Amino acid sequence: MTSIRTDLAMEARELYGQQSNDLEGIESENYVSEGIGITRVRITSPAGETKIGKPMGTYITIEAEDIKYGDMEFAEQVSLKLSQEIKTLVDLSKESNILVVGLGNWNITPDSLGPKVVDRMLITRHVIELIPDQVDERVRPVCAIAPGVLGITGIETGEIVKGLVDRIKPDLVIVVDALASRKTQRIGTTIQIADTGISPGSGIGNKRMGINEQSLGIKTIAIGVPTVVYAHTIGRDSLEMLIEEFSKHTAPGTAFYKIIREMPESQLDAMVNEVLSQGLGDLVVTPKEVDMLIDNISQIISDGLNSALHKDISLEESRRFMH
Amino acid sequence: MTSIRTDLAMEARELYGQQSNDLEGIESENYVSEGIGITRVRITSPAGETKIGKPMGTYITIEAEDIKYGDMEFAEQVSLKLSQEIKTLVDLSKESNILVVGLGNWNITPDSLGPKVVDRMLITRHVIELIPDQVDERVRPVCAIAPGVLGITGIETGEIVKGLVDRIKPDLVIVVDALASRKTQRIGTTIQIADTGISPGSGIGNKRMGINEQSLGIKTIAIGVPTVVYAHTIGRDSLEMLIEEFSKHTAPGTAFYKIIREMPESQLDAMVNEVLSQGLGDLVVTPKEVDMLIDNISQIISDGLNSALHKDISLEESRRFMH
Amino acid sequence: MTSIRTDLAMEARELYGQQSNDLEGIESENYVSEGIGITRVRITSPAGETKIGKPMGTYITIEAEDIKYGDMEFAEQVSLKLSQEIKTLVDLSKESNILVVGLGNWNITPDSLGPKVVDRMLITRHVIELIPDQVDERVRPVCAIAPGVLGITGIETGEIVKGLVDRIKPDLVIVVDALASRKTQRIGTTIQIADTGISPGSGIGNKRMGINEQSLGIKTIAIGVPTVVYAHTIGRDSLEMLIEEFSKHTAPGTAFYKIIREMPESQLDAMVNEVLSQGLGDLVVTPKEVDMLIDNISQIISDGLNSALHKDISLEESRRFMH
Amino acid sequence: MTSIRTDLAMEARELYGQQSNDLEGIESENYVSEGIGITRVRITSPAGETKIGKPMGTYITIEAEDIKYGDMEFAEQVSLKLSQEIKTLVDLSKESNILVVGLGNWNITPDSLGPKVVDRMLITRHVIELIPDQVDERVRPVCAIAPGVLGITGIETGEIVKGLVDRIKPDLVIVVDALASRKTQRIGTTIQIADTGISPGSGIGNKRMGINEQSLGIKTIAIGVPTVVYAHTIGRDSLEMLIEEFSKHTAPGTAFYKIIREMPESQLDAMVNEVLSQGLGDLVVTPKEVDMLIDNISQIISDGLNSALHKDISLEESRRFMH
Repeated sequence: MTSIRTDLAMEARELYGQQSNDLEGIESENYVSEGIGITRVRITSPAGETKIGKPMGTYITIEAEDIKYGDMEFAEQVSLKLSQEIKTLVDLSKESNILVVGLGNWNITPDSLGPKVVDRMLITRHVIELIPDQVDERVRPVCAIAPGVLGITGIETGEIVKGLVDRIKPDLVIVVDALASRKTQRIGTTIQIADTGISPGSGIGNKRMGINEQSLGIKTIAIGVPTVVYAHTIGRDSLEMLIEEFSKHTAPGTAFYKIIREMPESQLDAMVNEVLSQGLGDLVVTPKEVDMLIDNISQIISDGLNSALHKDISLEESRRFMH
Repeated sequence: MTSIRTDLAMEARELYGQQSNDLEGIESENYVSEGIGITRVRITSPAGETKIGKPMGTYITIEAEDIKYGDMEFAEQVSLKLSQEIKTLVDLSKESNILVVGLGNWNITPDSLGPKVVDRMLITRHVIELIPDQVDERVRPVCAIAPGVLGITGIETGEIVKGLVDRIKPDLVIVVDALASRKTQRIGTTIQIADTGISPGSGIGNKRMGINEQSLGIKTIAIGVPTVVYAHTIGRDSLEMLIEEFSKHTAPGTAFYKIIREMPESQLDAMVNEVLSQGLGDLVVTPKEVDMLIDNISQIISDGLNSALHKDISLEESRRFMH
Repeated sequence: MTSIRTDLAMEARELYGQQSNDLEGIESENYVSEGIGITRVRITSPAGETKIGKPMGTYITIEAEDIKYGDMEFAEQVSLKLSQEIKTLVDLSKESNILVVGLGNWNITPDSLGPKVVDRMLITRHVIELIPDQVDERVRPVCAIAPGVLGITGIETGEIVKGLVDRIKPDLVIVVDALASRKTQRIGTTIQIADTGISPGSGIGNKRMGINEQSLGIKTIAIGVPTVVYAHTIGRDSLEMLIEEFSKHTAPGTAFYKIIREMPESQLDAMVNEVLSQGLGDLVVTPKEVDMLIDNISQIISDGLNSALHKDISLEESRRFMH
Repeated sequence: MTSIRTDLAMEARELYGQQSNDLEGIESENYVSEGIGITRVRITSPAGETKIGKPMGTYITIEAEDIKYGDMEFAEQVSLKLSQEIKTLVDLSKESNILVVGLGNWNITPDSLGPKVVDRMLITRHVIELIPDQVDERVRPVCAIAPGVLGITGIETGEIVKGLVDRIKPDLVIVVDALASRKTQRIGTTIQIADTGISPGSGIGNKRMGINEQSLGIKTIAIGVPTVVYAHTIGRDSLEMLIEEFSKHTAPGTAFYKIIREMPESQLDAMVNEVLSQGLGDLVVTPKEVDMLIDNISQIISDGLNSALHKDISLEESRRFMH
């Protein structure tokens, strides 16, 4: 498998598929509807895990590149799609307590997605506890925290979440995090929902502990959005496309054709590293407009969550409750 | 006792002293040195608790009104004084683990003191765990969190802190919070250190759970700064001074003198409420310059804490470690 | 006239009316409709100017205390009312160029109203210049600036605005500023529109130059919202109400009655100053919730301006154009 | 000349030098001292202008990659070096009035350098005007503004600056702006000082008017820091290095060697565009840590400016004056 890193199961599957036809343990389907692409990847066996490099479970990807044009109606459609897809993964009763955790560092713009989503959640747990009679019966108890990252707190995020979960015992945890993907056009426009929670090492911060059903003891859904791309990935992609381009100009059998076609993957990687070390280094890059992209997608995700977590409550109603 | 609310034990003691000479259970001493006033109030019995309305323990108040002139050297002196006074209350060994908790709401300027202090703490716990060899041996493991308030998280702050303390088991907790006092000149210029932690209902947010040794099971120091004054307090004070002023113009024995001297406390309070309801309402007020005042005092407190929590580390060194 | 300061013509007129029946040069009318109070004060002669302490012109006050409950529909009604009232003062042609100036200091929450409104304006001037064909014909050219205050720039705000107006020659200037009023319930809930622009010394910052038709050479509308109250005002009001309260308990003819009834205004003021100097000093105070109050009213004002400055464009449309 | 865009004269000269030996009209010298690299490029003729694509004048580049390690003493050395180099370009008398203009958009992190520098300037013009007796005689009148970008104001930045300069008539204008460079390691670590001011189209925002001596009528110094890199640049560099790498594997005379050696520049550019359009698009990228990088370099630049603009005032003194 390639060494190129991505947090999207969909991209990992795609990469794997370019190199192998053995898809045992990996199911995948996708469709596009009203400008929104949906891909479902299911990893169903340990063999599938090894191939894709992601834990067993379901990964739903919502691709909505047109978000960037700022059409509010389209944004609402994406929120509703997100809401629907979340509901396919969880089964909430009227009393279900939900904890939303916004991972990431609010001081680093591309890592601030989680805290920004938490900021816009409709928080109801305390109101239901204190004045149950005054709360609309469709509203479920939702609480939320943005605990900060290791460098800010000195504590593994997983430890903080575990301590809190043990104390308040929610029925469901939803973790929101910024991800790294392979394509810049996915930054701020693609949402992944996974019933696997967060694995150690995933996301754009440094997490060394998982935040998932295994570590927390309760169902944990992860929602992530790519906000950065590894510079190495860009270089690696460019290289492959250039080789293809060059190949068109050279006849099979010539020396060059042989050189590039027979060059092993590892040598290609080394060459890209060599080239990039003088340009981008080991950088994670993000577009200049990252502030705006993250603002927009945070609103879409919190709208989607507010709609999914309470019963039959419209976007408009949830926004009104916020005040 | 008067109904006027204050979070400063020193003010509560002062108010009580105006009404009674029975100081059993309340010890108090104060001195001024280099422009910094220090007051120590010790409440030593349940009777003292009832009189002052604060739990048994030691309350140290540092008054440094000149902070407002922005002299950096004076600010450093206040930080050092804070550091010294904290050390009189705690006994740290080389391995002591310390958790600093910044209470309050970062979206409400006068309630943002705790989060701002946490933001400027020298966080070392994770570095000592990951690369112990590279850390100066005078540095103790310090971690910190600003958990947010009930209205933002839906969870009692006390619950979040309790969950975290149970999980990471620090040796000492320090909670930083914004307070209400009786005098506006104390806003941003007075620091209270108490070995009693935080009581339910104290501070300017709404805490319904204590954050103290009783609830957490480990020693808990509270550091607070007044950032608001109750409008009622202003009105009440004005009323008393006006009565005094009027009294000078009226001879003892006249009808008016009798009226105001014999007016019961409760009627005075009612009159102030009446007057204020048309002006200030039940408002908590803060000066226009609150943003700057809180910025300055947060720096002073984090400098003082960084100096107190690590062994023989100067302000300059701790600032350098931050980078 | 009383020395109590207010930036609201409506309050100044009220105060004056308590002391005199000579209303020549001052016209006033008011009504309430759907929970929104409208007061129009017209100062029509130099005599009126002297009495009220405000320049000749029309001052419209919109009182909407219920804004604080956060009802979005009510907020929209206030925006529309603001839009209608602005239109009664200006006469825009299709090509009218409008410059919106947000006065105040973005670092001081109660003084940040102007910059916050500018931040939410629909800015169109450059789009109309660059790609006129793609702009809806109902859209007029609007530009905006938040120049910062004297302490930040070192330049009188009036100088910056004058330089800009001379350069780009708009047809209308609208200045938005934070004001001081006499009543805390008006903070964040009352809007004053004046065709007099800004006078030197008004607003909560220190302006030494006017920003008005006289200084700029073109029509200048000022929109202001009280965000602070002078502590002295609170004390002064309290004093008057207390005197009234006391008077009820004393018979005409008694010494006390004489004392307070005959006490000259200046002595009352001095007494309040004396009392307040030990409590609030010369403070300008603001409620703890000022961050939220200013956020809400800024949105209402920018919505109202966006609706007033373009022809037949609804709130919804103007919000959509923003993206 | 290559089509690759850079705002650094030093990089433009380097690129040009790779393609031609005709350096008439271009002077260049460089040295390294205490970890800080200094390069001076002088463009001395219209021919030089055409070759480099930058207006005639002096461009000083300070390279200090070690800034990223956060050593405060090194940062102060860079500030002092900046101060010295600025002084080589300007000749200030005691009364010289200086206007500092911070270009860029405070809402877009990589474009917020200018406003952040202005925020930390020692502003003295108003103090000298109002209370000249109380100001240290070494202090010169400095004022500053961050006018915002076209998309925010609807007004060309150059228009706002021109209006202000015509009004307050400073003796010197210093404009601070974020730049695009060719190498990511220069982001936040390299400072360019140019006595040419700002040309149309330079910087990372869209400026269509120059801000220079020609447009303003007074001497204008530009200070810039790379905060972004064009993705195209990365791809273009990668391509060239890959071709070199491939060439080593192919003998002169072979078909491939001919293909790549004879491929015209424009075709290479087209190929990169083709490749990048599927990956990065026309993106400007920036590292994830951009928030921190810009915070650090802003402080260094404002320290350097504060030291350069006032006579014999140390960093420590200027910081103290700030309070």
